[in-house]
Amino acid sequence: MTSEVQQLLTTGVALTDETLERLLPAPTVEPHSIHRAMRHSMFAGGKRLRPILCMEAARMVAGTGTLPQGAVELGCSIEMVHTYSLIHDDLPALDNDDLRRGKPTCHVAFGEAIAILAGDALQTLAFQTISQLPAPGATLVEIIREFSFAIGTGVGPVPGSDLPGDLPPGMIGGQVMDIESEGVKPTAELVERIHRAKTGALITTSIVCGGLLGLGHCLASGHKLACTEEDAIARLRTFGESAGLAFQIVDDILDVTQSSEQLGKTAGKDTASDKATWPAVYGLERARKDAASLIADAFAALEPFGKSATPLKSLAQYLVDRTH
Amino acid sequence: MTSEVQQLLTTGVALTDETLERLLPAPTVEPHSIHRAMRHSMFAGGKRLRPILCMEAARMVAGTGTLPQGAVELGCSIEMVHTYSLIHDDLPALDNDDLRRGKPTCHVAFGEAIAILAGDALQTLAFQTISQLPAPGATLVEIIREFSFAIGTGVGPVPGSDLPGDLPPGMIGGQVMDIESEGVKPTAELVERIHRAKTGALITTSIVCGGLLGLGHCLASGHKLACTEEDAIARLRTFGESAGLAFQIVDDILDVTQSSEQLGKTAGKDTASDKATWPAVYGLERARKDAASLIADAFAALEPFGKSATPLKSLAQYLVDRTH
Repeated sequence: MTSEVQQLLTTGVALTDETLERLLPAPTVEPHSIHRAMRHSMFAGGKRLRPILCMEAARMVAGTGTLPQGAVELGCSIEMVHTYSLIHDDLPALDNDDLRRGKPTCHVAFGEAIAILAGDALQTLAFQTISQLPAPGATLVEIIREFSFAIGTGVGPVPGSDLPGDLPPGMIGGQVMDIESEGVKPTAELVERIHRAKTGALITTSIVCGGLLGLGHCLASGHKLACTEEDAIARLRTFGESAGLAFQIVDDILDVTQSSEQLGKTAGKDTASDKATWPAVYGLERARKDAASLIADAFAALEPFGKSATPLKSLAQYLVDRTH
Repeated sequence: MTSEVQQLLTTGVALTDETLERLLPAPTVEPHSIHRAMRHSMFAGGKRLRPILCMEAARMVAGTGTLPQGAVELGCSIEMVHTYSLIHDDLPALDNDDLRRGKPTCHVAFGEAIAILAGDALQTLAFQTISQLPAPGATLVEIIREFSFAIGTGVGPVPGSDLPGDLPPGMIGGQVMDIESEGVKPTAELVERIHRAKTGALITTSIVCGGLLGLGHCLASGHKLACTEEDAIARLRTFGESAGLAFQIVDDILDVTQSSEQLGKTAGKDTASDKATWPAVYGLERARKDAASLIADAFAALEPFGKSATPLKSLAQYLVDRTH
């Protein structure tokens, strides 16, 4: 890892953590149990990759070099949804995991009822936080629309909307497909579909939402965009989709090649339950090649942004080079 | 029940049902199971009280006599959140209910994993639907902010926001308090706090959100409001809080006095588990008096709106007169 990426990650984690500390209800606020449960999972040592990608996308599009106002809070909203999805995914009825990042999962620490409600409340708090960002109403509505499509079952918009009608499945859609694929021999097509939805959709929307927030600041500051607004968002989406899929492929590879201690969770679990993974379909060597080729696609998408794209590109490179 | 209320309810249910049919992903859309589960619970014969209250509040404030554009869809979003909360509340880890409105609950019909995710997806779809309403961005952001505070744990806003700092607990906060009060002898103060949060907050926000949507239309059409905008929303909030608490007190009374067949759910369950209810604290006679007195408060709050408040008042009266 280069010292530049190390710097980005360290600063990003600190910014995210101190902002979450402010956004999350204090553990002394009634009812205590749910606020303690929400904090338990939010501060369990996450890498904060999604908020950092969101912030850097916002910074790149804003074009002033500094983080646009509200970018950290927007990143925190995305991390809240990521955490809610992990809390629910770990429940006995779903993956039944006792450990997450080396700590007891939410339902182990607080019981199933509070864990279910803590996940629910984190989703609500994410939308609440976005609705309070310092940005024009039209920008916030666009972010909420983009975000909600990415984290739902991912079906096309209602008639009369100006969004494309044939959207890929969202995060929850991916979780359902993942559950239903267990015990079924995974096909290449299914694995890609699940990966793009279950982890890819949230990573992509982190970057796109950051870009949407950055756009407002770019226009307000009179900074000249490297391309049209529409093209900027489309390029960020391609970058996110490619980097997101690469990230999940590397996750699959690490699950096969690393020990539980290195990962902080039960390794080899995916193989054991015949889960849909990239190495299971293509083998390890091809999986490594595919991850590298996706990162090349991601880099190409950001070409018009020149040097200002360096932080996002370094982060994408880190996603495939990481060892845990 | 007067024929006027009957007409309001019949029309409101039909409008809500046909709009939900359009807003919910078709059962043939992949992944099928979650879309079927979402529809199973959304079309389980709900009374649609919250959407109807939302629509009538929007109509009253808009002042043109017709339903403002987007009011039905907004009401449907609120019904989605109501349904998601019921799905999660019915889970084995929470109330462990097998029947809801005489039909198998979501987890009984589709399994726990899909039920948890169907609830999650309905919350997401609610915010997605609001973000697509035909109204100015500023109005939608205000609605999303109001709504998210009402359905979360209900803690005050982040610093710098212009919302009041000492908000009552929201819907999830109420569910947590309800769970944690089991086995504890209920006090009058606790019962009121739980009722105001667990059911009151969503009923109140249905009316307030409807009012916020109506305001935009009122201003656009040049119609003269009966009071200031701020006063209109404050009066709707008082109306909602009083009618919402009365509604829950009547629910408690019906649980004691009616059979399971009449209710479509297991009667006497509240007493059996020593749950926090109004009759348990005050007895049946006082409970009936309190409900009537709260409805009088609700009526008084709408006084400046004159005759245009008749539909909302009739609905409030129906809430306390109903027998199931």
